[in-house]
Amino acid sequence: MDSAHAPDGPPAPPVSALPLYHRIASEIERAVTSGALRPGDRLPSVRQLSQQHAVSMTTALQAYRCLENRGLVLAKPKSGYFVTARPPAMPEPQVDLSIEAASFVSMDQVLHDFLLMVDDPLAAPSFNAAPARALLPEAKLQSLLAGVNRRHPEYASKYQMAGSTALRQEIARRAVGSGVHLRPDEIVITNGGMEAVYLALKSVASPGDTIVLESPTYFHLLQSIESLGMRALEIPSHPRHGISLEALDFATQQPGAVKACVLMPNFPNPMGSLMPIGHKRRLVRMMAERKITLIESDIYGELYFGDQRPPVLKSFDTEGDVVLCSAFTKTVAPGYRIGWVAPGRHFLKTQTLKVRTSVACPMLQQEVLAQFIRDGGYDHHLRKLRAALKTQAHQMADAVARYFPPGCRLSLPQGGLMLWIELPRHVDSREVFMLARLEHIGVAPGAAFSCSRRFDHFIRLQYGDPWSPRIDAALRKLGQIVTQLAQGGPAAGGKGTRHDSSTDRDARAPVPSI
Amino acid sequence: MDSAHAPDGPPAPPVSALPLYHRIASEIERAVTSGALRPGDRLPSVRQLSQQHAVSMTTALQAYRCLENRGLVLAKPKSGYFVTARPPAMPEPQVDLSIEAASFVSMDQVLHDFLLMVDDPLAAPSFNAAPARALLPEAKLQSLLAGVNRRHPEYASKYQMAGSTALRQEIARRAVGSGVHLRPDEIVITNGGMEAVYLALKSVASPGDTIVLESPTYFHLLQSIESLGMRALEIPSHPRHGISLEALDFATQQPGAVKACVLMPNFPNPMGSLMPIGHKRRLVRMMAERKITLIESDIYGELYFGDQRPPVLKSFDTEGDVVLCSAFTKTVAPGYRIGWVAPGRHFLKTQTLKVRTSVACPMLQQEVLAQFIRDGGYDHHLRKLRAALKTQAHQMADAVARYFPPGCRLSLPQGGLMLWIELPRHVDSREVFMLARLEHIGVAPGAAFSCSRRFDHFIRLQYGDPWSPRIDAALRKLGQIVTQLAQGGPAAGGKGTRHDSSTDRDARAPVPSI
Repeated sequence: MDSAHAPDGPPAPPVSALPLYHRIASEIERAVTSGALRPGDRLPSVRQLSQQHAVSMTTALQAYRCLENRGLVLAKPKSGYFVTARPPAMPEPQVDLSIEAASFVSMDQVLHDFLLMVDDPLAAPSFNAAPARALLPEAKLQSLLAGVNRRHPEYASKYQMAGSTALRQEIARRAVGSGVHLRPDEIVITNGGMEAVYLALKSVASPGDTIVLESPTYFHLLQSIESLGMRALEIPSHPRHGISLEALDFATQQPGAVKACVLMPNFPNPMGSLMPIGHKRRLVRMMAERKITLIESDIYGELYFGDQRPPVLKSFDTEGDVVLCSAFTKTVAPGYRIGWVAPGRHFLKTQTLKVRTSVACPMLQQEVLAQFIRDGGYDHHLRKLRAALKTQAHQMADAVARYFPPGCRLSLPQGGLMLWIELPRHVDSREVFMLARLEHIGVAPGAAFSCSRRFDHFIRLQYGDPWSPRIDAALRKLGQIVTQLAQGGPAAGGKGTRHDSSTDRDARAPVPSI
Repeated sequence: MDSAHAPDGPPAPPVSALPLYHRIASEIERAVTSGALRPGDRLPSVRQLSQQHAVSMTTALQAYRCLENRGLVLAKPKSGYFVTARPPAMPEPQVDLSIEAASFVSMDQVLHDFLLMVDDPLAAPSFNAAPARALLPEAKLQSLLAGVNRRHPEYASKYQMAGSTALRQEIARRAVGSGVHLRPDEIVITNGGMEAVYLALKSVASPGDTIVLESPTYFHLLQSIESLGMRALEIPSHPRHGISLEALDFATQQPGAVKACVLMPNFPNPMGSLMPIGHKRRLVRMMAERKITLIESDIYGELYFGDQRPPVLKSFDTEGDVVLCSAFTKTVAPGYRIGWVAPGRHFLKTQTLKVRTSVACPMLQQEVLAQFIRDGGYDHHLRKLRAALKTQAHQMADAVARYFPPGCRLSLPQGGLMLWIELPRHVDSREVFMLARLEHIGVAPGAAFSCSRRFDHFIRLQYGDPWSPRIDAALRKLGQIVTQLAQGGPAAGGKGTRHDSSTDRDARAPVPSI
């Protein structure tokens, strides 16, 4: 594995010295963010913009295209450009910087119910963090699959242990865009992203070992760690920048105390944060120095709302000790259940474990994906998907700002599929979950994302569904449920004491720096 | 879960009081086995047979059909019935009744190489224990898959956590034939039979626990146990009857010492034995009394060479403590990677673990299998497959008898896909494996099937490929390799001491009773 940042690799994606059009676009974005421009406002024509900034028409047009891609600007034929959405007028969630001792994970019954409920087909928004069917290229995949099935009847009988060579080639090719050079034979195809992380954990750590996680984190990950008999040590994360490097530094100073660190640097579930490049570089160096294996899940990495594909941690890896996991389940085909892992120096162990766990994955869907990527269909699809998700993120955030009571907090995600919402501190998100579930509203209770109680007043919503009157009504109803509970209204289970709602008067305090 | 043998269930399949035609067929089979009838011999006409036994022409015809099904008799149009094959004139492998202490599993490099080699597409016979493509219904599955894909584009996006309801219904329906009543919601669909057993082990036992296995056993199972940090306690198995109940009784007398027992009662890999019904009943009772969970893999259960589908251990289960695992990978679609587990009272734990490990399996192939089973295609296919495999088993056993040197032993399997061959004691099967591999002959070294050294002079061959001059030549070559090594000829790795071949003069000693 070569790092794209090594002297012999291609240069890393430029992050400073942004092009002119990008700077103009950012200026307009700031005007939208600050409220100087409002939804529906008409923007200068391309000609006016080029004159204002003394740039060419092409550059002005590029700036608008860039804003269109970010979902902030809408081009109306023969009318010009308009502001589409505004960031919600809500403060960011607060960060609790305390660290609790590493502990064995244990899930409670409400959370188990949550897991069992995720199949509820009536829920809107749905429980599942995945794009709605309308945003997925089902017809195109169906047609490709018909072709692969016609040409390869033998896929009923045959499989490749490490996975389809064609798919591994395409994954290796795409990896360059995230800053990393992989050979196809360094990749193992898995049953979705979950098996990828599971195999990675089993490859690098043993029962009883301590694993560092960002907090909050994906509840299936907490459960995987539980079922592997490992301990979870949760490190606080900032809603915009991800895991606190200071807290991580502090928690990993004792040599040998921590075996591995599992992170989603790009748009993690449930936060949607994006770790700055400087943080990524420092993090990889710190873990390498301390001999702690980094397991990185990048399943949301392609769903960026900015201009560029953010690099993966593995692009800064010089030791082969970053294990990169990803999947196609969040971007194109949740039903195909195809993921992959590039285990670096743990390759042999991981491949062997894959064979021992589930031998291999079906070839058919792997070949369909390989063809979809090779033909350019995947990139085309991702461009449309990113724009739609960014718009939906804004729409849902707006609805939360509209319908939720004072004291709620929200950080607009920079990619991915989820909103992470802080409710007034005395609201139990389990109750929100249970009441919302009766209305078929998909809410994940914050308690599912940590072994601690620190997110008991948070909820996760996913915005993979296109905005609709039904979703709007669901958000209004959800706002009523939260308002009722915030006012000490009817509780679902009748458990716990209702606090006076005046205790959340500090809820709009400034965000602590992290 | 109701047992089919419980008072309220349907009666167990009859095992004594066999019908008349069956008794006549068995008489003829004995004549073939004893050598009284030889391959190519013409048999009495149907009329003659009916007169000889004073039965109806229909009964006589049924007897011949039965023998045809067993692959012993061939009907030539307008010529009559002929003997097709004879059981090989070889003694059965010997059984070493000693039990070694439970140990953590550790695999060596040769065996790891073996695992990596199983993808060798040039090997004939192949390394993989699976029917050849020519024996699998690829065209039919291809056509069904085209239809499911046409009707269900949403399977690219959607999945069911526990698996396709339609497939679980068909599995439940078929389970009746193996003596067990299951509800669809007692079944979890898995990524092949390996994941089924893996989830079962994780559900019922913890790292450090002792697991009882039949010996020899499937090498992936040994590796699963290794990767789960459990101890394997190997109990000797008889080549015809499976695990020794006496040894098992002895090894499990100390309460709490053994957590679970993993067995393949029907045609296990690599032995092809069949546990008699009386043994099955005793085994289930003994394990229930000792609170040891039985994990049963029945992936070869449909590949019986006798007249009846043998029952599964779970059909004798009254406690819900038998976990039944199976798959479609050995019978119809190895490439679909679909298996299942009926975890009994461990259902919730197993389903949760499935979600934590790999979330779900793709729907497309599950629906294709459901339709294939529902339309009767599966039963039709299995009838043909069983006849072909039985014939191929005889053909390969004949070739072993023809080409292998004195001192080799073989038990004709009663179903499944494999021959288990004992070589002269001083022949190292690793060397056979390495020399054969250079010739693209798929041989599994016996050492892979145990943590002990007791099968170092055994090899496994699979007869899933239809007989051909190429396979015949491969067996002849293999016979030469074994002969050379038996005579102290050139070794592949040069390791180990060559013994005098006169030490195997006791190799034709009678089989010890077990």
